[in-house]
Amino acid sequence: MRILLIANAVSLLAAFATAQPQLQLNLMPMPSVVQPETGQLAIDRSFSIAITGFRDATVERGVQRFVAQLSQETGMLLKNKAAESANPSLLIHAEHGREEVQSLGEDESYELTIGESGAKLNAPNSLGVLHGLQTFLQLVEPRMNGFAVPAVTIKDQPRFAWRGLLIDVGRHFIPLSVLKRNLDGMAAVKMNVLHLHLSDDQGFRVESKKFPRLHEMGSDGLYYTQDEIRDLVSYAHDRGIRVLPEFDTPGHSGSWFVGYPDLASSPGPFKIDPEGPDSVTDPTREETYKFLDKVIGEMAKLFPDAYFHIGGDEVNGQHWDKNPKIQSFIHAHGMKNNQDLQAYFNQRLQKILAKHHKIMVGWDEILHPELPKTIVIQSWRGQESLAAAARQGYSGLLSFGYYLDLMWPAARHYAVDPMSGAAATLSPSEKSRILGGEACMWTEWVTPEILDPRVWPRTAAIAERLWSPQETQDVNSMYARLEAVSWRLDWLGLTHRTGRFQMLHRMTGGDDISALRTLADVVEPVKDYARIESVKGPWDFRAPLNRLVDAVSPESDAARHFAAQVEAYIQSGYKDQAAETQIRALFTTWRDNDTKLHRVLNQSFLLKEVAPLSEDLSALGVAGLDALDYLDKSEPSPESWRTEQLGLVERAKAPKANLLLMVVAPVERLIESSGGQRPKS
Amino acid sequence: MRILLIANAVSLLAAFATAQPQLQLNLMPMPSVVQPETGQLAIDRSFSIAITGFRDATVERGVQRFVAQLSQETGMLLKNKAAESANPSLLIHAEHGREEVQSLGEDESYELTIGESGAKLNAPNSLGVLHGLQTFLQLVEPRMNGFAVPAVTIKDQPRFAWRGLLIDVGRHFIPLSVLKRNLDGMAAVKMNVLHLHLSDDQGFRVESKKFPRLHEMGSDGLYYTQDEIRDLVSYAHDRGIRVLPEFDTPGHSGSWFVGYPDLASSPGPFKIDPEGPDSVTDPTREETYKFLDKVIGEMAKLFPDAYFHIGGDEVNGQHWDKNPKIQSFIHAHGMKNNQDLQAYFNQRLQKILAKHHKIMVGWDEILHPELPKTIVIQSWRGQESLAAAARQGYSGLLSFGYYLDLMWPAARHYAVDPMSGAAATLSPSEKSRILGGEACMWTEWVTPEILDPRVWPRTAAIAERLWSPQETQDVNSMYARLEAVSWRLDWLGLTHRTGRFQMLHRMTGGDDISALRTLADVVEPVKDYARIESVKGPWDFRAPLNRLVDAVSPESDAARHFAAQVEAYIQSGYKDQAAETQIRALFTTWRDNDTKLHRVLNQSFLLKEVAPLSEDLSALGVAGLDALDYLDKSEPSPESWRTEQLGLVERAKAPKANLLLMVVAPVERLIESSGGQRPKS
Repeated sequence: MRILLIANAVSLLAAFATAQPQLQLNLMPMPSVVQPETGQLAIDRSFSIAITGFRDATVERGVQRFVAQLSQETGMLLKNKAAESANPSLLIHAEHGREEVQSLGEDESYELTIGESGAKLNAPNSLGVLHGLQTFLQLVEPRMNGFAVPAVTIKDQPRFAWRGLLIDVGRHFIPLSVLKRNLDGMAAVKMNVLHLHLSDDQGFRVESKKFPRLHEMGSDGLYYTQDEIRDLVSYAHDRGIRVLPEFDTPGHSGSWFVGYPDLASSPGPFKIDPEGPDSVTDPTREETYKFLDKVIGEMAKLFPDAYFHIGGDEVNGQHWDKNPKIQSFIHAHGMKNNQDLQAYFNQRLQKILAKHHKIMVGWDEILHPELPKTIVIQSWRGQESLAAAARQGYSGLLSFGYYLDLMWPAARHYAVDPMSGAAATLSPSEKSRILGGEACMWTEWVTPEILDPRVWPRTAAIAERLWSPQETQDVNSMYARLEAVSWRLDWLGLTHRTGRFQMLHRMTGGDDISALRTLADVVEPVKDYARIESVKGPWDFRAPLNRLVDAVSPESDAARHFAAQVEAYIQSGYKDQAAETQIRALFTTWRDNDTKLHRVLNQSFLLKEVAPLSEDLSALGVAGLDALDYLDKSEPSPESWRTEQLGLVERAKAPKANLLLMVVAPVERLIESSGGQRPKS
Repeated sequence: MRILLIANAVSLLAAFATAQPQLQLNLMPMPSVVQPETGQLAIDRSFSIAITGFRDATVERGVQRFVAQLSQETGMLLKNKAAESANPSLLIHAEHGREEVQSLGEDESYELTIGESGAKLNAPNSLGVLHGLQTFLQLVEPRMNGFAVPAVTIKDQPRFAWRGLLIDVGRHFIPLSVLKRNLDGMAAVKMNVLHLHLSDDQGFRVESKKFPRLHEMGSDGLYYTQDEIRDLVSYAHDRGIRVLPEFDTPGHSGSWFVGYPDLASSPGPFKIDPEGPDSVTDPTREETYKFLDKVIGEMAKLFPDAYFHIGGDEVNGQHWDKNPKIQSFIHAHGMKNNQDLQAYFNQRLQKILAKHHKIMVGWDEILHPELPKTIVIQSWRGQESLAAAARQGYSGLLSFGYYLDLMWPAARHYAVDPMSGAAATLSPSEKSRILGGEACMWTEWVTPEILDPRVWPRTAAIAERLWSPQETQDVNSMYARLEAVSWRLDWLGLTHRTGRFQMLHRMTGGDDISALRTLADVVEPVKDYARIESVKGPWDFRAPLNRLVDAVSPESDAARHFAAQVEAYIQSGYKDQAAETQIRALFTTWRDNDTKLHRVLNQSFLLKEVAPLSEDLSALGVAGLDALDYLDKSEPSPESWRTEQLGLVERAKAPKANLLLMVVAPVERLIESSGGQRPKS
């Protein structure tokens, strides 16, 4: 937590000292302009709010939530209604209302001025008010005289108009309550689009009154009723978030065929188990379009957003190749290949969407010159693909680099910029077509209890990339602020910090989890698609996800802090005694951990697979202690010893039980350093 | 966690070995008869349930919740409907239905037989089914081949018919969602009465349509609507739990007077702030009874339970003494004192209740020979008072010894038996009048976020006292099983284990909480009424409860384990090396903790008060390490050193910031031992 302490020390300093341009407050996403001032505004039980100017339900409910959250974060019972105080602690002023259906590019700016005698929040409309209130909440901290916010002037607006989070509710159903707390998390970091991947081979997740077999036969009984969707949309709207529905077609649409096999390109019957039906929609039958017109018509009413996502990715052409009727359709219409057939399908689809007043969104594969320039391309392929679309006049969203299921560290997502690479070379008008991006939470390996820790806190780093100025790039600052925002997100009911304790308890059967936590804290799931590649035989989406790989965080904070400590120790010429003491304590804990853990490993089927990891960690502890001893004695370690230890290091680098031990590299550095000639002190 | 490991080892053993009568399973409350058998029943994804015999909504919803919880606890997606399988994993058979309104003494027994090929749950009615399902859940554990329950035959029924938890929602309003998760917790440990203390000086917490000023003016806007109450009652009913409403009168009823000042014995106007209005109901006016008749009539319909609690405790007689009209009423009616006046009031009240088909319940003070024998006395005074009532023919409930706000350890509550002391001398028919007991969660110092950790897991020990045979008294076994039940309760959304992390984060302002946790783990709040006695000036029920005393557990598990380790070390003649190593590691952590903690202590107003505690803990660490050194060297410590250390010990025993350092006594024992002549080895 060293980095965070520095950040806080700086913010404390600024509150009592004169304005410091280099001030870093624990804000995420970082606002466009932050001008620190002198002093602070106390937050006590007399805290009051007044609303002048325009006021609508968004502002009123937003203020109510703000007061409730401020109460919760401070433990003070604050008044839950905005008083018409003459001297309010916080004066809120909105110029005018927001649009009835939130639109892309609607003004989201705000100005927040905090002085010793009060704060003012001004915004053109209620969306800016919501964002400004979130900024205010992030500034609240305990000081020596009570809770306070530092005096500051903030002018803020988003860099991109589309800042989304995709949640795949098709592979694994995610209950409404879980979606709602994630909407709260999104609002806290100023995201504005929840993209729901509502259907896939494993499930069709929305009640259709027109075609009830879609959700009844096309799911395992887990779907949202239409009332629930309306509730969700309204919940999101209250928080300044649009809900974008995606019904993937013609691929990834197997769940449709269980109840309506005629839609498929290959003969049925179809069933959901175990991988989902392996077929794609038949684009050659007129009945297909009649069906789609009705489904889209029904769903278009349910989801008021102007955009509608039709997926369009990863179409398995084999089913079209094998179907003679489809092949003759291709030839009869003078098409060259399956891609032309999909373009034909998409054109028909686009007309249906236009009829229902929707703008089509789809993945890279839908890009085709015959489609109108109004459509939006969501790119999982990268900035190159996005830039190519922009040059052809299409709007686009970046999702490449923001796939949360790939288990990347926050820093790696953070480094991905929609305007970098090929996109950097675009003309201003082409650049304006890049609307923003979306973090994507695909749920092949995610059940409801696993969702929050996969999404948070990493998504906050992506939210900053999409909101803050392009120059906001300092990774150390990002991590410091990410830790601060992470515990605040906990107040919203998100379980990213505490949920795994229960999952560890499940594995031990209620036994003490402390030794298991020591191991869990320093491992990460394997990266990219390594896990699915490790599956032998067909993937079963209903398989229990209750192993250590499911319980651990995608990014090990402990390993990151450990690496920084080792680096500091080495950079100090092995003189940093405080760092060495801490490193030694960790090594000792690891060394002794395997014995402690072994008892539970040998009584639970969920844990036996992690025994080799535990042994590796203990061995690394022993090797690390030896290396420190050599460094302490300023005596180079014997080469034979190093060779042996580096063999251990290589073994420890290999993934086991789909987990990676994240502390290997710093230990390796110490082992190598111990052979050097550099004298101690 | 040594104790728990032993318990688990025993249960594992039993699964593979032959039946062992001394088997201890992690069940709480312990059933009447547990007969271990050979083998185990695997719980895998094919797990199925069949219901034969009687089936009602209670059984069906109970089974649905059971499957959902089993899914959650194992991480397996299990079928969420009871199949009509020919060979079900679990066969449920109920003889007949339950009563429409759950009645006191309704049969709650069940028999659960688990064999290698399946389990059978038989019960006279659906209440027994609910209890049997909870027992089954507590048996599920990961084994080497998967999840399983051990083969066992259980015959079970409660010792007492009334096993309650009182939650005071008057002092601090507790939201419906928090009550619901506590109902889930109660059901898990087979409690069957939720007693809601619905009104007090600080608030009237139920919507009254007849007298809306009761909840509107008599609260801070926080109350349950009638729809919410109906929802709560139905939620409780589904779980086999009665809801007993308490409207305290003639004392503790200040909130009534804010909207209806004529009810009071002293002149108004009244307001809620800060301690609640200081007056009592005027029992001499006929209008009072007309009012009560209407309020009780309205509430009697809302709460279907046969019992209705009128409080009746702690009447401040001063207001009657000072009112000449009331004094002349007393003389005119030939009453001797205020007690007679309260008895008159209670008789009138009892007739009103009877008219609305309710049986009166009240605290010890309502006991008076002129009241009919149908009433129930709830005793906060003790078994003596309870026995006296039973001898006079009154039924009674014990709450003395079960006050959760007194911060007693679980073992102390566990030792309190309704049938002990004076009650042990009662005749069988008198004993039959002792219906059971209630744990009481008074909320002077409890906000919604603090409730769960105050109630759980200690209430589970009280639940066992009221359900299990009187002979179930082994404290070590109780603690082992309490730890096991505690983490299972976490699955229900209760926050007793994880909620305090956020409270600690609030105190540090987001900084690393590890050093604060080290301190928090070994302190407990001061006991009994020491905290309220420490308040200078009037108590303000709206004061923020965000200090360390509010965040720590009422009982320190770490301190209990530490004491056991020190005891084992001393008993071994200082030879137990493993114990010494662990004790030494703890002392070292404590010694170094103050430096770590000091930075945050000095930047947060919420923490500065705990600085002396932190210094004491460090000093105890140093003293403990020195004592161990002397013992290691088999060299008696100098008397001067011991005298100095024992001075430190005395200082460390004094409460600070309303907290007690719970590890002082074992350190004291080591210091004293270090002076002895006993040689090492």
